[in-house]
Amino acid sequence: MHSMDGCNNQSVYSHIACCAQLGMILEVSSSPKPGNIDRHHDYEDTRYEHFLASAVSVHPVIEAAARNDSRVGALLKNAVCHSNSWQSGGNTHFGAFLLLIPLSMAAGELLGSGKKFDMDELVARAHEIVCSTDTDDAIDFYKAFRSAGVRVNDVDEFDLQDDSSFVSLREEGLTLYDLMVISQGYDQIANEWVSGFGDCVKCARMLDRFMDVSGDGALIPDINHAVVFSFLKLLSDRPDTFIRTKTDENTAEEVSYQAKCIVSKLESSGYHMSPFWDDVGKFDELLLEKGLNPGSTADIIIAGLFISLLGGLRF
Amino acid sequence: MHSMDGCNNQSVYSHIACCAQLGMILEVSSSPKPGNIDRHHDYEDTRYEHFLASAVSVHPVIEAAARNDSRVGALLKNAVCHSNSWQSGGNTHFGAFLLLIPLSMAAGELLGSGKKFDMDELVARAHEIVCSTDTDDAIDFYKAFRSAGVRVNDVDEFDLQDDSSFVSLREEGLTLYDLMVISQGYDQIANEWVSGFGDCVKCARMLDRFMDVSGDGALIPDINHAVVFSFLKLLSDRPDTFIRTKTDENTAEEVSYQAKCIVSKLESSGYHMSPFWDDVGKFDELLLEKGLNPGSTADIIIAGLFISLLGGLRF
Repeated sequence: MHSMDGCNNQSVYSHIACCAQLGMILEVSSSPKPGNIDRHHDYEDTRYEHFLASAVSVHPVIEAAARNDSRVGALLKNAVCHSNSWQSGGNTHFGAFLLLIPLSMAAGELLGSGKKFDMDELVARAHEIVCSTDTDDAIDFYKAFRSAGVRVNDVDEFDLQDDSSFVSLREEGLTLYDLMVISQGYDQIANEWVSGFGDCVKCARMLDRFMDVSGDGALIPDINHAVVFSFLKLLSDRPDTFIRTKTDENTAEEVSYQAKCIVSKLESSGYHMSPFWDDVGKFDELLLEKGLNPGSTADIIIAGLFISLLGGLRF
Repeated sequence: MHSMDGCNNQSVYSHIACCAQLGMILEVSSSPKPGNIDRHHDYEDTRYEHFLASAVSVHPVIEAAARNDSRVGALLKNAVCHSNSWQSGGNTHFGAFLLLIPLSMAAGELLGSGKKFDMDELVARAHEIVCSTDTDDAIDFYKAFRSAGVRVNDVDEFDLQDDSSFVSLREEGLTLYDLMVISQGYDQIANEWVSGFGDCVKCARMLDRFMDVSGDGALIPDINHAVVFSFLKLLSDRPDTFIRTKTDENTAEEVSYQAKCIVSKLESSGYHMSPFWDDVGKFDELLLEKGLNPGSTADIIIAGLFISLLGGLRF
């Protein structure tokens, strides 16, 4: 069997899973990535290596998604199962799985039928997939959410610790997509589902531009720099909803304002790296000190990297 | 399909491939790992991210090895093909592939037939597999060697740049195992093939002991520390043949002597970390300055991590 990259032994489905793994690994490795775990920063209970192990562990789940072997909710529950069984650092990639699973299902359908990669077609199909989720997907989402140990947003509609919430989900006939519609105002990942993965595509296009995928001349011909800058740019445009959930709206907006200042400097200096890294390093220290981690922004960067790698980003 | 780790969707063959990926990723991430690329150190043309991409890229090849879909030489050639097509940093894992491929073939046979993991049985079967290689494997090895861009040892018996060497291989009926017998005195990887993967097992047992896989109380309950110490211990016991090839025997022995001094201090201090890390950091700087990288030691650590992860090492 010939693979996507011209070598033997790889199905398109396994290739998709490798792109998802590398997306997660490059994201967590990029440094300094303000406020988040990276190759130079651990948290007390969750370490860099926990993220690496989690990323590796989900190959079979992403491959199953690409083969359309299972439904969104069941795949999500299974991704959390694999991640938990390979590392003990707690929640690492729940938000990322929520994006990668429908995107991988769409990629498997399109590339598996022999079509050429097309970013817009990919996210359009992923949007159809999330729109067609049902109440079973919603129930599996909550089960996965519980076992991942994600911090519960206090404005959630359902008490996730209580099985009776499943009964009310059934009675109301709510699908997983419906839950995302409810959450879209205060959760970036939900907003990606509802809006059709717009920020994921934006990140992929940024990464492609920085890394010169089209061959027009790279702005930032270094994968670490490209990921860090895409992260800052997204953070400057969208207050991180993981920070908002853990603190409040003002704090999330203040963090984005600080990111915007750095991004402006970088853009006006023609992407000169040296002064930029000083500012990023200080911003990183500040957020780490205050325990402010832009986790939702990181999830969207992972999805952007996945799309770019699928489209041929190499370094 | 139920997997090795109790979740759905994973075959034992894909599980074996994930263990190989994580072994490569943990090895290159561990820091300070004297003289080698790690999460804090790049070389000029080869970066940390090149190793990450290479490790991710070979999932399908290791899975094919575990399924015994192909022969050692063809798998090796294909592993190099995948690694090269995902990253442009040159040779990253050629020595590691030479160890991981027969070990994965053995693991696939044993675990695929429902047997429980047994370290001794695993390497015994891997030794039978390498003993049964043939001249086609030898030719594929040379082709892979060329395309990986590995530094050619000046005492090699055959001119690798010349296709006529294949003719003489055929005429002499030399197998890949025969080539390893010829090289065993000056190449640690060849020596592992011939001796039955003894140092790989030694590393796996060290990692298991440090990480307390048996539950007797961990000496170094931290995966980064455990890998760095296993690396130093192996380096102190065996002069690195990659250093020897690039410089000379005395230099390789001097590096091992320096490693032995650090290991002795650590052992006699009851594994207290703080003074140990200072010494390791200085040793790392010294080797990096001199361009001495113990690459063969790193390859064996990867195989040790692979065996430990297969056996249940988690963190």
